[in-house]
Amino acid sequence: MHERGRYDKETIHVGHLIEGRPVVIPTFHWRVGDTVFWHGSSASRMVRANAAGGQVCLTVTIMDGYVLARSGYNHSVNYRSVMCFGTPRLVTDPDETMATLKAFMDKLVPGRWEGLRPPNEREMKATAVLAMEIDEASAKVRAAPPGDDPGDETWPIWGGVLPVHTAAGAPEPDKYVEGRFEAPATPFAKR
Amino acid sequence: MHERGRYDKETIHVGHLIEGRPVVIPTFHWRVGDTVFWHGSSASRMVRANAAGGQVCLTVTIMDGYVLARSGYNHSVNYRSVMCFGTPRLVTDPDETMATLKAFMDKLVPGRWEGLRPPNEREMKATAVLAMEIDEASAKVRAAPPGDDPGDETWPIWGGVLPVHTAAGAPEPDKYVEGRFEAPATPFAKR
Repeated sequence: MHERGRYDKETIHVGHLIEGRPVVIPTFHWRVGDTVFWHGSSASRMVRANAAGGQVCLTVTIMDGYVLARSGYNHSVNYRSVMCFGTPRLVTDPDETMATLKAFMDKLVPGRWEGLRPPNEREMKATAVLAMEIDEASAKVRAAPPGDDPGDETWPIWGGVLPVHTAAGAPEPDKYVEGRFEAPATPFAKR
Repeated sequence: MHERGRYDKETIHVGHLIEGRPVVIPTFHWRVGDTVFWHGSSASRMVRANAAGGQVCLTVTIMDGYVLARSGYNHSVNYRSVMCFGTPRLVTDPDETMATLKAFMDKLVPGRWEGLRPPNEREMKATAVLAMEIDEASAKVRAAPPGDDPGDETWPIWGGVLPVHTAAGAPEPDKYVEGRFEAPATPFAKR
């Protein structure tokens, strides 16, 4: 993943059980070594369910394009996806919390953490950080032209890939910036 | 969703239970009325688990931008997300299968279905289509500038939104096209 799409937009979903049924929630994640972190409101069902020690499945997917073949059934998608399984723990040590939130910010906007208004106690109480060592993971990648059946290639229709990627728009300063500060570099791929 | 992002790239994840643990899998989906469809290899664990009648959670998320506030904890994301719950059924009627796969193709590339090499029996056996009436759904949207704490707005750092969107790359014809056919219009947003 690192090589091919470091700065691509990733949508991550965390799946877990709430009262015995699967619930899939979008969230951000970040990684330090072999530990994956995510966070949420301390009061949320997600955090309470995750902190209770059940197993979760964390899936990240980036779509790279539609693959148009000559038969409907051979249509596909170019994508990169990782599925990780493990049992999260709630991060309770304030030093670990601060260190990992800094790592999160450094991933999004390097250098920003140092310039921010420091966290206060109310904020630290309201937000919970979850950590998961990855017990098991599987990655899938498709990056190829259509896989048509032999003989189908000459069917009279266009075949190939319609690529798609993540692009950054112009930064939108809020009304308090008043031209005093530069926007940070976008963390998204430029192409 | 329809109004704001009809042609945005959507990453959908389906969460379900396999041997009692949550598993979250990326897939395409399409909708006809109040029924959501997805498909997979007939032999896959996902299809077998879904066809067995357990409840699933289907989550679609589009990220629209990073929201940079003056404190770390007030950072956020602009996004649109829908979570749907229901119990899928396997589509077994060949006419329903064909009609819904045509609807799927019409969503991706309007008009393409009619020009394709028609499905054969082997293909129809190898691919399973799942249908789910939506029992329960919830949508979440954030589309706003940073929500800073009162007094934080003047902290000396840039605040605002770093927008992100889905962009189409140039179509990549495969080697059999040889300039004979035009690529279809991209189904992705152009900006």
